[in-house]
Amino acid sequence: MHLEATEPGTGARKLFRRIPRGAAAVAAVGAVLCAATVSAEVSAESQFVLNTFSFLIWGALVMWMCAGFTMLEAGSVRTKNASVICLKNIGLYSIAGLAYYLIGYNLMYTDVGSLIGTVQLGYGPSDAERSLLSGEEAAAGAVVDQGYSTMSDWFFQMVFVATAASIVSGTLAERVKLWSFFAFTAVLTAIIYPVVGAWTWGGGWLSEMGFQDFAGSTIVHSTGGWAALAGAMVVGPRLGKFRADGSVRSTPPSNVPAVTLGVFILWLGWFGFNGGSQLALAGTVDAVAMSNVLVNTNLAAAAGVMAAVSVSRAILGRVDLLAVLNGAIAGLVSITAGPDIVDHHWAIVIGAIGGIICTLGMKLMESLKLDDVVGAVPAHLFAGVWGTLAVCIAAGGNFVTQLVGILSIGVFVFAFSFLLWMALNKIMGARVSPTVEELGQDAAELGIEAYPEFVLMPDDDGLEDAQ
Amino acid sequence: MHLEATEPGTGARKLFRRIPRGAAAVAAVGAVLCAATVSAEVSAESQFVLNTFSFLIWGALVMWMCAGFTMLEAGSVRTKNASVICLKNIGLYSIAGLAYYLIGYNLMYTDVGSLIGTVQLGYGPSDAERSLLSGEEAAAGAVVDQGYSTMSDWFFQMVFVATAASIVSGTLAERVKLWSFFAFTAVLTAIIYPVVGAWTWGGGWLSEMGFQDFAGSTIVHSTGGWAALAGAMVVGPRLGKFRADGSVRSTPPSNVPAVTLGVFILWLGWFGFNGGSQLALAGTVDAVAMSNVLVNTNLAAAAGVMAAVSVSRAILGRVDLLAVLNGAIAGLVSITAGPDIVDHHWAIVIGAIGGIICTLGMKLMESLKLDDVVGAVPAHLFAGVWGTLAVCIAAGGNFVTQLVGILSIGVFVFAFSFLLWMALNKIMGARVSPTVEELGQDAAELGIEAYPEFVLMPDDDGLEDAQ
Amino acid sequence: MHLEATEPGTGARKLFRRIPRGAAAVAAVGAVLCAATVSAEVSAESQFVLNTFSFLIWGALVMWMCAGFTMLEAGSVRTKNASVICLKNIGLYSIAGLAYYLIGYNLMYTDVGSLIGTVQLGYGPSDAERSLLSGEEAAAGAVVDQGYSTMSDWFFQMVFVATAASIVSGTLAERVKLWSFFAFTAVLTAIIYPVVGAWTWGGGWLSEMGFQDFAGSTIVHSTGGWAALAGAMVVGPRLGKFRADGSVRSTPPSNVPAVTLGVFILWLGWFGFNGGSQLALAGTVDAVAMSNVLVNTNLAAAAGVMAAVSVSRAILGRVDLLAVLNGAIAGLVSITAGPDIVDHHWAIVIGAIGGIICTLGMKLMESLKLDDVVGAVPAHLFAGVWGTLAVCIAAGGNFVTQLVGILSIGVFVFAFSFLLWMALNKIMGARVSPTVEELGQDAAELGIEAYPEFVLMPDDDGLEDAQ
Repeated sequence: MHLEATEPGTGARKLFRRIPRGAAAVAAVGAVLCAATVSAEVSAESQFVLNTFSFLIWGALVMWMCAGFTMLEAGSVRTKNASVICLKNIGLYSIAGLAYYLIGYNLMYTDVGSLIGTVQLGYGPSDAERSLLSGEEAAAGAVVDQGYSTMSDWFFQMVFVATAASIVSGTLAERVKLWSFFAFTAVLTAIIYPVVGAWTWGGGWLSEMGFQDFAGSTIVHSTGGWAALAGAMVVGPRLGKFRADGSVRSTPPSNVPAVTLGVFILWLGWFGFNGGSQLALAGTVDAVAMSNVLVNTNLAAAAGVMAAVSVSRAILGRVDLLAVLNGAIAGLVSITAGPDIVDHHWAIVIGAIGGIICTLGMKLMESLKLDDVVGAVPAHLFAGVWGTLAVCIAAGGNFVTQLVGILSIGVFVFAFSFLLWMALNKIMGARVSPTVEELGQDAAELGIEAYPEFVLMPDDDGLEDAQ
Repeated sequence: MHLEATEPGTGARKLFRRIPRGAAAVAAVGAVLCAATVSAEVSAESQFVLNTFSFLIWGALVMWMCAGFTMLEAGSVRTKNASVICLKNIGLYSIAGLAYYLIGYNLMYTDVGSLIGTVQLGYGPSDAERSLLSGEEAAAGAVVDQGYSTMSDWFFQMVFVATAASIVSGTLAERVKLWSFFAFTAVLTAIIYPVVGAWTWGGGWLSEMGFQDFAGSTIVHSTGGWAALAGAMVVGPRLGKFRADGSVRSTPPSNVPAVTLGVFILWLGWFGFNGGSQLALAGTVDAVAMSNVLVNTNLAAAAGVMAAVSVSRAILGRVDLLAVLNGAIAGLVSITAGPDIVDHHWAIVIGAIGGIICTLGMKLMESLKLDDVVGAVPAHLFAGVWGTLAVCIAAGGNFVTQLVGILSIGVFVFAFSFLLWMALNKIMGARVSPTVEELGQDAAELGIEAYPEFVLMPDDDGLEDAQ
Repeated sequence: MHLEATEPGTGARKLFRRIPRGAAAVAAVGAVLCAATVSAEVSAESQFVLNTFSFLIWGALVMWMCAGFTMLEAGSVRTKNASVICLKNIGLYSIAGLAYYLIGYNLMYTDVGSLIGTVQLGYGPSDAERSLLSGEEAAAGAVVDQGYSTMSDWFFQMVFVATAASIVSGTLAERVKLWSFFAFTAVLTAIIYPVVGAWTWGGGWLSEMGFQDFAGSTIVHSTGGWAALAGAMVVGPRLGKFRADGSVRSTPPSNVPAVTLGVFILWLGWFGFNGGSQLALAGTVDAVAMSNVLVNTNLAAAAGVMAAVSVSRAILGRVDLLAVLNGAIAGLVSITAGPDIVDHHWAIVIGAIGGIICTLGMKLMESLKLDDVVGAVPAHLFAGVWGTLAVCIAAGGNFVTQLVGILSIGVFVFAFSFLLWMALNKIMGARVSPTVEELGQDAAELGIEAYPEFVLMPDDDGLEDAQ
């Protein structure tokens, strides 16, 4: 190791030459006291603190991903819909947090049978924690035995459901009604995602089969992607997106730096998303694994970027910045099912293939006349499927089991979402009127423009030549 | 608990079934050695490290809130004042840090009597820390006994004073002079806020009365709000904001995605603001409490959003995005006085009421002809008062004590700020000239426009019909 | 200390009056068991976990700096080049990560002789870590003895190389070709920076001489600055920047709030950059030092801002917002070589001088007809040189040694970069054609505009009057 190559006191960056002090002290007393082997380890209470803190810090970074989705989407839509997409995003994060508190978490994690957990309102600290906080020192042992604080886990799980909901808003931007989107979000975060979660992370039937999805390539990202795809089919494409002659109207992002900022935010947040999914920071194994997770996450994203840079000209006719940015996300989604692999070159391969799949997927969506404003389905669903299968290559997953998981979750989420979107369409209308769409949701639904002072280009390719 | 429901080795997300290793080892030796009970706990030095790290990490997130205020304000003002508000914000953060280092901290925390601490220039590591860093190992014990490193505490306290100062810039945007704003900021952060802090967190008379304000609904947010309100009264409304016929001129934000980004940044930073205010991460109790704090913080913000979504149409005539974004902030401010409550549904109630109060407050300010560009007074002052009273409901605060705290701090900060703004107005002019205001501070004061390449809408509602 | 001034149970913010519990327990048993002295310390495994976590968390914040550079640069260029600078930035971060994984890290840190480390493809966990992760519990001891996980260190080092690369893109914006920039980045991050790193942090000849550069004023920031300067000389100024009559054409930033956001991101990220460079969080000394580092980092940046505010009118003819924002960066760069000083007032002095040097440097660059779009050379190179020398004042550095380090690294990086830019210019052309430059790289190279819907001011000062 380079560590020992340097002398103390020099300018070398690795000079903490540590024979860890604890260990040294232990050596000194080791012959006398067997307790010494205990004190070289992380104490039970320290484990509790570190596990909890890991959930909180990494969870906070995952919350930050919602800002990333917001910037990505606000920059991707046309200016006339940029305010309403901001409202949708802060709304969905709020709804997700409340719905998961009221219903979702218990459905996903409390006394899970094979299919679902418990229908029960609200969630809170354990009895032991309440006792401890009210001054009963005797409860401390029972709390420490939990391994982490109850609500730190809840917090970390909550930001995940918000991520799934964030995926939907991008795909359906510029035409889905504010209130039907909110209604869909409530059901997605209270029921759909929690049921998928119960099957898997909650310990249900897919978990028992051995389905592997470390941080949610399928459970979070494909779930969001399937829900978005169903919505795109029911709601339909934006007016004029696909012309009568079969050509596709270009709808470039209105604010490219905002989109880029969004992707950087997501990239940063993903360190929390994958790193925190180690679910513990209790000792050597966790620390080593978490480090590998962050490295793989970064390598996969970088590879997704460079792969998209390389192939976008061939596939899309130019070095397409949006495909490149989406390539980062696809790389991240791809590694999410198995970011703890030890051979890091596999992360590069998996991320690069994810970036290519995503770029191809953007082309595919257009040729299928499915209008996905931000390319969320290729990045989250297609790359999510790939990432879940890739676990078989590098992380020892079983191909059939992975496929069963992908398909069953896909069928469930897609079918439920499709029916729900149909019902919402019936009840309250899923889509704004052509007039509102033409005018923009900002002016028509909110009465507030995103950039009221800037003079805009006339939109010369509007309704008249719509399909 | 769902934790034990799953078997190791499955795909379940909760499989670290930990009987904490330390505890297990302890059990093995517990019969022999009483030291075993020690090693199950967090060692004194580990406590020191964790407490310190908690201050640093959460403090860094609180610093990030200054970027949030900057984006919120730069997006809220008209484009002609967007550069100068950026300068005001980076300037205020810098001034706050320097003033608090030079004077403020000692006034707030060093040898606090009933009213103030010490007037003394500069601050630094403790003697024991200096000895330790210069190689005296023997000083380590004294350092560990501090509980946390001296400057980690300073860092965390410093970012709080910056938050208070950030509140003022938004209210007074678009007409307060750069240099008088900087002068006010210096006094606010060197004297006003530290005196309030000395009464409370420093251990002064309000602290002795039992006034409760966990992370500063009153101490930070209302203080900033009162200072802003006084400034708004002295400086007066923007030209043309209130027309002669009594109607209010709409001054929509110039960049809505920037405002939204700002709110997301604040939300993220608030996890540090409230979470770090546990002031320790030394063991089970702290970790459990900090988790509850983050959960309540998030729930209150989400409830503030949804409450504002629900009532803004009734109060303001439409689903008002700005009211919704401000609702998030109001929810956060409301929970800040008591975010450690155990029954999380109270956080929803408190945050929701905060969101409604804020929306009503925005209306009230307009009807009082008080021009608050970003709605900071409703979000920080009105919701701060509410939050400080709400401690009586869910966190055992005494109503009279809380009221005494709110009123005494309010009178002190408002009166001091009002006189200071009057003095600044006399000495250097608090407000730019009508010509500068009409032209915009960016061109007139800085000679740099925020978006020089974009063609702007003509401002057709300017001086001529001003009050 | 104010800490003991308050009674438990009051509202005071410092009431955790802790005689640390561990210590108390230790006292109780100390007479009996020598093991007690062990359990008051941080156990070896806890040290491993904390060191590793420190690398990961702070490293994630350093990654965030790339978003800061992106926003700073995208806001600084004219709108017609804002998309391509986004692509350059996400591309450079990806290339840096891959190149450092494939080649750079081993060259910098593996078996470093006097000049370089090892040429070897790829990097990964240690053998002990692989054994431990595959279930061999016996390997745990060897892993713990490492002090931190192998890949957490790699992650932290990787984000540093990305920072160096980020500096170059800003200086050369608006005219350097996408692909030649990517090619330069690959060599910079695979070879140039790692060689400099091997001399210093890797333990090579400069390290043995005693060269001090805590977090990289020279090693990271000047290296990036020299590479940028060489590029600026080879690539040349933007068309029309320096007019035939000797006057300088003003090219104001197109999006000032984006620039400001970028600076705030950098400021936040710098807490990770400098704080994480303590390289450990293993006990009292590290925690105290890390706290001092964060405080100095913040004070120096604040001083850089206020110094630039104060002198920019004298030097540049107005209170120049860009000089002020650059002053923050210069303050941060200046303190980076020795942020662990104990007397914090020195941080203010060092940062303030950095801010002044940077402002003067912006003027100097213009008078030398060197076109640096964002002022990266003054902020990173000039302030980096100053900061490295300033170590002699406050942190005990040797002046001659520091100078040798600055000069040798300067000569090496500048010469290598200059030749490389010349070669790239020969092979693929370093600069876009005048037509592309006139039209903007966004439309010409990417076919995607940054803000396609906003009507832009006609660029009336273009080619015709270029030099």
